[in-house]
Order: sequence, then structure tokens, then C-alpha cells
Amino acid sequence: MPKPRPKTGDAKRAQARGVKLPATVARRAPAELKYVPWNKVELEELNPLLQRQLVVGQDIMVARVLLKKGCVVPEHSHPNEQLTYILEGALKFWVDGREIVVRSGETLAIPRNMPHKAEALEDTVDLDVFHPPRADWINKTDQYLRKR
Amino acid sequence: MPKPRPKTGDAKRAQARGVKLPATVARRAPAELKYVPWNKVELEELNPLLQRQLVVGQDIMVARVLLKKGCVVPEHSHPNEQLTYILEGALKFWVDGREIVVRSGETLAIPRNMPHKAEALEDTVDLDVFHPPRADWINKTDQYLRKR
Repeated sequence: MPKPRPKTGDAKRAQARGVKLPATVARRAPAELKYVPWNKVELEELNPLLQRQLVVGQDIMVARVLLKKGCVVPEHSHPNEQLTYILEGALKFWVDGREIVVRSGETLAIPRNMPHKAEALEDTVDLDVFHPPRADWINKTDQYLRKR
Repeated sequence: MPKPRPKTGDAKRAQARGVKLPATVARRAPAELKYVPWNKVELEELNPLLQRQLVVGQDIMVARVLLKKGCVVPEHSHPNEQLTYILEGALKFWVDGREIVVRSGETLAIPRNMPHKAEALEDTVDLDVFHPPRADWINKTDQYLRKR
């Protein structure tokens, strides 16, 4: 049986009660209009081959992920649904027993809790959409990305 | 008081009980890995100035929206959170009492139920992310887009 995932509203209610949240649940952002040029968003350098920018809504997070050729994202999983859209370059994924190369103009939808690994076959600009927003990326507790 | 929005799991449970769903709630897709090149996705022509492609996950939908210069999206609102990322061109939005031009490389996060109108100032490629997926786009009941 899969573990029931936390609902996005749970974080706010739990915090209001002073309950410590599991590390995978992000505090829900306020519902507000946000106009954000990407060039005003912090470009976070996770390791010499990997940079990232985040725009976080209430229940959606969009990340621009910049991977240099040869960058490896080690196998990991998360309770967040993921939809990857490759804007430039190509990523090879190992997921669900398959090897899939996702190229510019292609998408990959990865269900929650499905382990996956990726490697950049070229310098790549990857747009990753998550629901709910990823607490580990927001809180910078994503150690699996910060090693080489 | 804002009307409580339907939760995404509600659709499946309601359908299992034979309950007729409101038109804004999409049937939840199965949790499956999907590898989708955009050039294999149906390009739907909504009107002579507006085309659209959809990739639908469980709780996330991503749409590539192609707008010709002068295309107007009339004011509307929806219970789905929206995050717009302009890949090419420029859209002018009327939203929350403001006029905001969102250009290539910029994003706009629109909270659920916030009315908005848009006009393409140039030929535009717009990536729209929604949570939950938009039933009116999936079911083709989005008449507001099908008129000129």
C-alpha cells in the first residue's frame, strides 16, 4: 500500500497547531498574483554542473533547471507529482524500469513516489513543474543534488 | 467568503458513487509515467487566432497555447491555480485591477478564481500550468475561447 501523501492544506493547519511538519511538506504560500521575470529570480548553484530557479505558487511550483552536459541527478523519489518539459538539450532518464531520452520539445510526466535518475546528454534547460511545491527544494534540504 | 474548491480526489470518489460532477472538476487521470513529445500531441484549433495542446497528469496539466497577434482571451476565471510562462512573444493581462505585459522569459502566477483577460501583443507561445487540470479544456466546454 502506498503511504497516503500529505495534503497541501495540511501544512498550514499543522503549523497553526504548532505541529512539526515532515520535511516533504512545504508551508503553503498565500494566494496572490505574482509577476516574475526569470532574470529577477535567484539562480541557485547546487553544484558546478547544476543551477536552478524557482517560482512558487500555492499548489504549483515551476523550476527552471540548468544542467551542464554530464550532470547526473542521482536516483531519488518524492511525494510530489512531476512534469518535466525540456526546453533545450536532452536528459536521459532511468525510470520505471525504462531508459528514456527526453529531448527539446518533449515532456515526461512522473507520478508521485516513482524513483527516477537522470543525466544531461547535452547542456540542458529543463522546466520542471511540481504539485505540491517541493519543500526540500524550497528549504534547501536537497542534499542529493548538492554532491557531485 | 470564497466558495470551497473541489479537491482533486473528490472527482474520482464522486464518480464511483455515480454522482454527477460539476463541469469544473476533471476526472483524475491514472498515476502513470507518460513520455510525450509535443509534436505528437493534438493541436486543437479553438479559433483562427488560437491553438492549444495539452499534457494532462494526475493533479497537474500543462498546456502549450499558441496565440496569433491580436488574439483576445475574454475575461474569465476558474477554480484552478494558473502559472503562465511566456516562451515567445508577449501577452498583456488585465488582472487584479492591473495591466501587466508578460514577455518572453517572464511568468505570471494567477490564484484560483481571480478574473483575468489577455491579449497577444505579438505571435506568442505560452506555457500554462494548472492545478488541478482544467475540466473545461479537457472536455472542450470552454466556449469563451471558441468565439472571436
